[in-house]
Amino acid sequence: MTAGSGPRVAVVGGGIIGLAIAAELLDRGADVTVHDPSPEGSDGAWHVAAGMLAPGGESAFEYPYLTRLLEASGELWPSFAGRLGDVGYDEAGTLSVALTADDVADCAREWKHQKLARLSGSQLREREPALSPRVRAGAFAPSEIQVDPRKVVGALRHVLKGRIIARQISDLSEIESDVTVVAAGCGTATLTGLPIRPVKGQVLRLRGEPGLLRHVIHGAADGRHVYLVPRADGEVVVGATQEERADRQITAGGVHDLLRAALDLVPGLAEHEITEWTVGHRPGSPDNAPLLGHLDDRTVVAAGHHRNGILLAPITARLIADLVLTGSADPLLEAFAPGRFG
Amino acid sequence: MTAGSGPRVAVVGGGIIGLAIAAELLDRGADVTVHDPSPEGSDGAWHVAAGMLAPGGESAFEYPYLTRLLEASGELWPSFAGRLGDVGYDEAGTLSVALTADDVADCAREWKHQKLARLSGSQLREREPALSPRVRAGAFAPSEIQVDPRKVVGALRHVLKGRIIARQISDLSEIESDVTVVAAGCGTATLTGLPIRPVKGQVLRLRGEPGLLRHVIHGAADGRHVYLVPRADGEVVVGATQEERADRQITAGGVHDLLRAALDLVPGLAEHEITEWTVGHRPGSPDNAPLLGHLDDRTVVAAGHHRNGILLAPITARLIADLVLTGSADPLLEAFAPGRFG
Repeated sequence: MTAGSGPRVAVVGGGIIGLAIAAELLDRGADVTVHDPSPEGSDGAWHVAAGMLAPGGESAFEYPYLTRLLEASGELWPSFAGRLGDVGYDEAGTLSVALTADDVADCAREWKHQKLARLSGSQLREREPALSPRVRAGAFAPSEIQVDPRKVVGALRHVLKGRIIARQISDLSEIESDVTVVAAGCGTATLTGLPIRPVKGQVLRLRGEPGLLRHVIHGAADGRHVYLVPRADGEVVVGATQEERADRQITAGGVHDLLRAALDLVPGLAEHEITEWTVGHRPGSPDNAPLLGHLDDRTVVAAGHHRNGILLAPITARLIADLVLTGSADPLLEAFAPGRFG
Repeated sequence: MTAGSGPRVAVVGGGIIGLAIAAELLDRGADVTVHDPSPEGSDGAWHVAAGMLAPGGESAFEYPYLTRLLEASGELWPSFAGRLGDVGYDEAGTLSVALTADDVADCAREWKHQKLARLSGSQLREREPALSPRVRAGAFAPSEIQVDPRKVVGALRHVLKGRIIARQISDLSEIESDVTVVAAGCGTATLTGLPIRPVKGQVLRLRGEPGLLRHVIHGAADGRHVYLVPRADGEVVVGATQEERADRQITAGGVHDLLRAALDLVPGLAEHEITEWTVGHRPGSPDNAPLLGHLDDRTVVAAGHHRNGILLAPITARLIADLVLTGSADPLLEAFAPGRFG
């Protein structure tokens, strides 16, 4: 099949999930159109996201089926990134670090779960000299890597050039297509009635001399959790609060908690300029795992990826494209039926 | 004398000092023109300043002549504000508070100098219930009051309507006037060669429900100094760093220090939105006191007000107008001769 000759598929939502699905469908011959109110815009969760790809990370505790999906998507990332060009795909890995004795006790549970060898403070500072002398212990997680979500979306938009339409869909019946894929993040709730809620995250972007940090730092500092994601150009993404709220306010408490934990772990960030303060909303489902599958004969949902939207983009694209083009549902999808909440 | 019939006076600089001088000169019959590169702009120190009027405050230690000038200007403020209309002039006063035992020791020196009665933590929380239970001691400074510098500048611009010209002066010889007053803040250095340096300050503006705070809070929290200036509309100005730098960067360390001290003293600010992050530069002289007086027969300087520009605007306006219109220098000016460093 050549592009355009297959079924007419409308994708509602031009975030990283919608674009990844559309690009996969296009590649496999479908006649794809993406509908998004601001196709050049930056109001998706992807724009705020740091882009940590951590298949073995915290989410693994929550839901064993999710672990399988995260790992399967992690395996797809190298070739997914390779096809898109420079998207900041960086395999330096993550140092998980803990400041106080309580932080160590807290983190040790995850290190054990992931079977990571514990490193002393001095071993950590050997790998990452900018870490505070106060950091007590940590672990190296080579499989927790990073990508730049803004570059990924830019590359996907390029692939889909001419197929992304500036249009706000308020009712799915407005769309003429053979199949409609709803991948509208938090907006999926009003379009489908599915239980997806916004989980607010405040994220800062700092900028300074490149090279202060080599690894992603994922740390606990006096009970405050923070990740520091260093880009090659000197940017350091500092995230993220996790708040059950829908507003877009940058708050004194949110920024304080992020900066305090960041500076407790890496004091040298104090001189970095704050270049961006952003708020995003993760689309969360009742069990915080995504909703993937048929809503009815002609409607497929791919939403509710919560904190894992970037990591899960490749596997979501593949499985949803299979579903749309062949009608067959991969066994991996079983646990994620959109109707599972009743 | 009616406005416009007196001497032609050019004022270089449309900040609060330049405008206050120009308004006083206009009122007393001079033919005044203010030159400023952006007469509608907001890049002056006044735009960032919180507007604390603290004649007995910290500066009093530095320079006894300055104390007299600060007090004299403080006495002029009620009538100066009264003529301008609503400029947020608020006499609720300041609570000076200290968090730790070390902070108390640090602040006690100033309380003693100002002859302020020491208040216990519970006495402070009776006056200001939002203060943290961790606040140990403090004092009430009824003479440290506030005004909104943005409203002051707005009102002065209105008074001087039609007399403010959008013009960047790069050499004083460009100006045709009988007398030129240089009140260009940090820009005075390049225009006159006088030793005025920028002292960077980072300031945040928060917004929440009005009424959380009644007084200005001036506090020390674990060695970090902060002031919190609540406006009637729910804005709370949080300032300020004091850095010997000329850049305009908002830094991770600067914002952290402000927020940490603010939240240590008033935990309820955590839910406030951060609505503005600004950087300003105080014009500092070698002794941090202003430069006020003749530079030559036809040139007068009024600059280098450092942290006291808002408080000193009324007295500066009066004394400089005297100097320009009558040629007589008030004895108060003696200690502030522009040439005293040469």
